[in-house]
Amino acid sequence: MTVRAHPYFPLDLHLPEYVPLQVDFVYILGVFFAAVVLVFAGTWVLSGGCRRHKHLTTTERLLACWFMVTGLIHFVIEGWVVAKADFYQDASGNYLSDTWKEYSKADSRYASRDSFIISMEAITAFLWGPLCPLLVHAIFAVKPWRYTLMAVVSVGQIYGDVLYYGTCFLEGFIHSRPEPLYFWFYFVLINAIWIVVPFLCLLHAWNKISAAVGSSKPKAKRR
Amino acid sequence: MTVRAHPYFPLDLHLPEYVPLQVDFVYILGVFFAAVVLVFAGTWVLSGGCRRHKHLTTTERLLACWFMVTGLIHFVIEGWVVAKADFYQDASGNYLSDTWKEYSKADSRYASRDSFIISMEAITAFLWGPLCPLLVHAIFAVKPWRYTLMAVVSVGQIYGDVLYYGTCFLEGFIHSRPEPLYFWFYFVLINAIWIVVPFLCLLHAWNKISAAVGSSKPKAKRR
Repeated sequence: MTVRAHPYFPLDLHLPEYVPLQVDFVYILGVFFAAVVLVFAGTWVLSGGCRRHKHLTTTERLLACWFMVTGLIHFVIEGWVVAKADFYQDASGNYLSDTWKEYSKADSRYASRDSFIISMEAITAFLWGPLCPLLVHAIFAVKPWRYTLMAVVSVGQIYGDVLYYGTCFLEGFIHSRPEPLYFWFYFVLINAIWIVVPFLCLLHAWNKISAAVGSSKPKAKRR
Repeated sequence: MTVRAHPYFPLDLHLPEYVPLQVDFVYILGVFFAAVVLVFAGTWVLSGGCRRHKHLTTTERLLACWFMVTGLIHFVIEGWVVAKADFYQDASGNYLSDTWKEYSKADSRYASRDSFIISMEAITAFLWGPLCPLLVHAIFAVKPWRYTLMAVVSVGQIYGDVLYYGTCFLEGFIHSRPEPLYFWFYFVLINAIWIVVPFLCLLHAWNKISAAVGSSKPKAKRR
């Protein structure tokens, strides 16, 4: 068994057969952000250009774009790390394996298969993931359960992320390399998006539901 | 430093200064279930006897009872284990410390301060905990946000519990004593309540919100 040195913290983490990244991090980030822009723009066009979606407000179109992007990130990117436990040994140059080799510099628990990380990511990838495009459909089709699903998915995202930060805090941030790119940009900033945006979505759903429930007729005593 | 043998699994877990339970587990369970019955019955009476709550249906009264009971369990019992890290060294005979000494036989991660357990319990105790009585108030006062809050709290409870089981599964259930009382009753059965009941609550909220949103007037294009 060949044991190669790896770049992950803590440095004594046992990761046998580690294979270094095959590409530059600029390429990984470039492809990621290009894909995000593409999916976002595609959903935007789809939600506005089609005649049967003319009823959608700007807010609803932006919500659809967000949930399409986040759903794909959950299912494709986060799904990959759940399914491929040995991604850090992948020598094929696979984009997703290399993405997780890069991100593990910000949080080595992905490589060491921390039980909380894998449980949380499994729910995120395979439950919130598919529910996001379903929600986009619900927004487009004006389903009466669209705000409830929005609240459910958003609470799930926020809670998973709060636990993500919380566990790191309690463990003393030992899993992250100290360089600003890894700690501040990958670990703090990118993850913060999944607290801020879901919180705004939850607020939107909350207000819409309150307006509907508040205006619906209070019936006589029901059973 | 005195190191005493403890009853927790895995048996080589380092828990210095462990002090055995001061009371019998029958006493712990008896007090727990008596308190649950008392709070449940009290909320039931309060929700039915008072003239200004005459509008409440049986389902709504049962929901109020559930959220009062679960809220108190979250805040008092789960709050204790978050706040008192050294509960297993507590020689005072404190009921809550002894409760956690007993429950740790089903899951020693409470004693060993597992970062996921403590993060999840902190949110459960100090966020879902206070939100539960607020929800009881919202049900009594027929607030337009009562179903949304019900969905939020219920999703939080379900997700926390799924991660609780998920992390144990991934770690091979090494933290639980094998006796049926600890593994099947404490660990599997008692925790299952917080998946089954919140799921029913979520379903109730989902249906109520869908009915209200579906019947609320679709306006012309809004911004």
